[in-house]
Amino acid sequence: MHEEPEALRQLRTRLGEVWDIRRAAAVLEWDQLTNMPPGGAAARAEQLATLQKTAHTWFTSDEMGQLLETCRGLVAGWDYESDAASLVRVITRDYNKARKIPPALVAELARVSALAYEAWVRARANADFPLFQPHLERIVDLNIQIAEALGYQDRIYDALLDQYEPDMKTAQVAALFDALKADLVPLVRQIAEKGRAVDAAVLSRPLSVDGQWEFGVMVLRDIGFDFERGRQDRSVHPFTTAFSVNDVRLTTRLDPNYFPQALFGTIHEGGHGLYEQGVAPELERTGLDDGASLGIHESQSRLWENLVGRSRPFWQHYLPRMQQTFPGQLDDVDVETIYRAVNRVQPSFIRVEADEVTYNLHIMLRFELENDMLEGKVHLSDLPAAWNAKMRDYLGVVPTDDAVGVLQDVHWSGGMLGYFPTYALGNLYSAQIMDQVRQDIPDLADRLARGEFGVLLGWLREKIHRHGRKYTPTELMQRVTGRELSAASYLAYIHTKFGEIYGF
Amino acid sequence: MHEEPEALRQLRTRLGEVWDIRRAAAVLEWDQLTNMPPGGAAARAEQLATLQKTAHTWFTSDEMGQLLETCRGLVAGWDYESDAASLVRVITRDYNKARKIPPALVAELARVSALAYEAWVRARANADFPLFQPHLERIVDLNIQIAEALGYQDRIYDALLDQYEPDMKTAQVAALFDALKADLVPLVRQIAEKGRAVDAAVLSRPLSVDGQWEFGVMVLRDIGFDFERGRQDRSVHPFTTAFSVNDVRLTTRLDPNYFPQALFGTIHEGGHGLYEQGVAPELERTGLDDGASLGIHESQSRLWENLVGRSRPFWQHYLPRMQQTFPGQLDDVDVETIYRAVNRVQPSFIRVEADEVTYNLHIMLRFELENDMLEGKVHLSDLPAAWNAKMRDYLGVVPTDDAVGVLQDVHWSGGMLGYFPTYALGNLYSAQIMDQVRQDIPDLADRLARGEFGVLLGWLREKIHRHGRKYTPTELMQRVTGRELSAASYLAYIHTKFGEIYGF
Repeated sequence: MHEEPEALRQLRTRLGEVWDIRRAAAVLEWDQLTNMPPGGAAARAEQLATLQKTAHTWFTSDEMGQLLETCRGLVAGWDYESDAASLVRVITRDYNKARKIPPALVAELARVSALAYEAWVRARANADFPLFQPHLERIVDLNIQIAEALGYQDRIYDALLDQYEPDMKTAQVAALFDALKADLVPLVRQIAEKGRAVDAAVLSRPLSVDGQWEFGVMVLRDIGFDFERGRQDRSVHPFTTAFSVNDVRLTTRLDPNYFPQALFGTIHEGGHGLYEQGVAPELERTGLDDGASLGIHESQSRLWENLVGRSRPFWQHYLPRMQQTFPGQLDDVDVETIYRAVNRVQPSFIRVEADEVTYNLHIMLRFELENDMLEGKVHLSDLPAAWNAKMRDYLGVVPTDDAVGVLQDVHWSGGMLGYFPTYALGNLYSAQIMDQVRQDIPDLADRLARGEFGVLLGWLREKIHRHGRKYTPTELMQRVTGRELSAASYLAYIHTKFGEIYGF
Repeated sequence: MHEEPEALRQLRTRLGEVWDIRRAAAVLEWDQLTNMPPGGAAARAEQLATLQKTAHTWFTSDEMGQLLETCRGLVAGWDYESDAASLVRVITRDYNKARKIPPALVAELARVSALAYEAWVRARANADFPLFQPHLERIVDLNIQIAEALGYQDRIYDALLDQYEPDMKTAQVAALFDALKADLVPLVRQIAEKGRAVDAAVLSRPLSVDGQWEFGVMVLRDIGFDFERGRQDRSVHPFTTAFSVNDVRLTTRLDPNYFPQALFGTIHEGGHGLYEQGVAPELERTGLDDGASLGIHESQSRLWENLVGRSRPFWQHYLPRMQQTFPGQLDDVDVETIYRAVNRVQPSFIRVEADEVTYNLHIMLRFELENDMLEGKVHLSDLPAAWNAKMRDYLGVVPTDDAVGVLQDVHWSGGMLGYFPTYALGNLYSAQIMDQVRQDIPDLADRLARGEFGVLLGWLREKIHRHGRKYTPTELMQRVTGRELSAASYLAYIHTKFGEIYGF
């Protein structure tokens, strides 16, 4: 073990301060979405702006650059996998990106997004795309400027995607999506023809929100979420945030007439939360104490939500417990009924309500339209029509209006282009990771059916969670699964599972 | 109206950033006491340290000093009461104080206090004063250094008191306390002899915590606390904090077997909250958006808690409502019974549980001992004995051990000497202010009995709340009541009220 040289100690100190400010901002954002009274909004915006500006100024300072340069010299011969070498390598990458974007551009995007968000809320409420269109035009334009500032070799989308999924290329995503499209589009048609094969009525039985909360918390405890180092609250849209590896906050929402809303939302955010709680304490306050990428983060939430929570063993274990939590309300339900119900496939307009089979098609459509917008291949006035045409081609349904079509997602109004693919990548990563888990733990299904989740969590902690951001998604997938990401595991999983459910 | 000169605009911008950071720290502290899981403590300490250091560094910068100097020139001839002149005057005072204390001393006090707090928790749990004594010695020593750095003319205590109650002098407090002592000590004896004249059994009836919460929230709404610009949560010790004049957070605690705990705690914090919500929006993010002093702040909480909440008109209005909230549980209670019960006088060991008559004697004792410690007139090993002797002299009771004696309060372990008098000053301010209110609103009692609290809140807003920190406590009392603070209003109030209750 190397004794820590002075420059490295100084780098850690400076980064620690930057992260204290960023984590403080996360506390303020969490409070805003869980507790803040309406009157607090204006002051909160000022506070967040000051915190974010401060963190950005400190992180992109010349002093930080000099420290990083000195440290690169120091760790040049060190083990690639060591914390110190990883710190210098990953933070240098962050620093170079952050320095490339002019602060004025960041500020302008923040300003434009604030206005765009307000316009989007109104536009969605009135299904009025033209109201949002001029704001989207500004956002596309600013994203083009950001991409040019960051630089790219092949596609302009590469620069934006790289902000969310480091080192992932547009061509790679496009190839994955082509493989998915060729397979899933006919599969969705085939299932749609058997539409009534699955009865999902049980999902709509009224169940008390208190009971749903209690059941969700029990599941979180069982899968390993540590309530000494985290908590769950309610919010309008579920999310996960972390103020430290020892203070991870989940939120959920509850619908008394549709329990999957809370249950799968809770498990999904729980998957994100387990990742955050599993990062090695040594990486605290360095900027490596987070997920490897948005896609890898999503792989953890989807793995627990879908590959565990929508599996037959899960319901073998939990149906009796759920019947206890809601006495007399689910006594006539058997495992097969509920297993099939939570896996019903149904092409629909809304991404966040999509099942495992159709979900990626929603993402693909957004990925293609984002590329077209950035490359000037679609005029924004034609965007709703382009959206609807792709919905018909991929899913066989056409949104009844733009509120449940092109206006449904918040991301563009928040200034984010290049973000959507990470959701689909998360699904693919999760399936490929789970294939490896099954090889390493052959009796996994039996253990899950007995409620033994620790063996799975232990595997994920060891292979993925503890490393935080030390590795790129590509490096991580090579380490964990021995191969680069492909659609194979995901497609095999989908065909096996849904072939059985729908009988072909 | 003056057009705002550039230097003033810059001053506001810089102060705004300082206050964004301080308010962010307040959010983190609130979260720590209401929501944070135990695991979050270590990271939270780092985050708060970085925020506080940042705010301090920015506020005490040379640039800030130069801006203030320029602005003093600008506003020299302006109206004393204008926002701009007040801003420059008050912030200059804050700046000069902050610059006088070496940052190393601040850091050392923070470090020593963190250890002292841990030691105090253990010492109190074990009623073991010697465990805490060496920590208290360090804290007294550091407070002496701070007082010397700040400077003073008469008593060393002046410098410390001034941190919490600007411009208030030790001699003035001592004179007020002498007047109180001469009057209250015999009064407490007289009441103690009539100990069983008041039956307080009704206070211990079991009442559901949900009902108590609901009733407390109703009272808060009625007295004018705006839940669109604030909220209430639970915490171990009640407190109020503000992230903006439009985002004020109260906390309370609930005891199912002693409803005054929650009710009067809620009204007390509500009084603080009304003050914060009433500050003029123009003072936001300037450092003037807070109470004039801790004593004036306490006057608002005590006014609502005691002069309103423990008054006969209050119970005329609320007893029927409380009977509705708890059906069948209070039907046999009449206004006189509950009015007398909530006003029972009983000398006890614990300050925070003390009634209106004995409360100030608890403070007096601490004020005298703090002076003795700072002036080397008591050896710390003799402190418990000195404490107990004063308890016997003033209250006629002697603590059974140091946990309910010299170790009961958190303040010293937090590094704060000079803070306690502000509680007693709050009581005196509140009585003197209320005398003025009664002159200006002759039918106040009738209106309170009808639940018309708006007239009182309107008066307080106009005379006190909206001004924030523009005036010193002395200036404010002159403006509001036309005279400087004396014990007369308070003593007259006590004698009238408790003379009637105890029949002499």
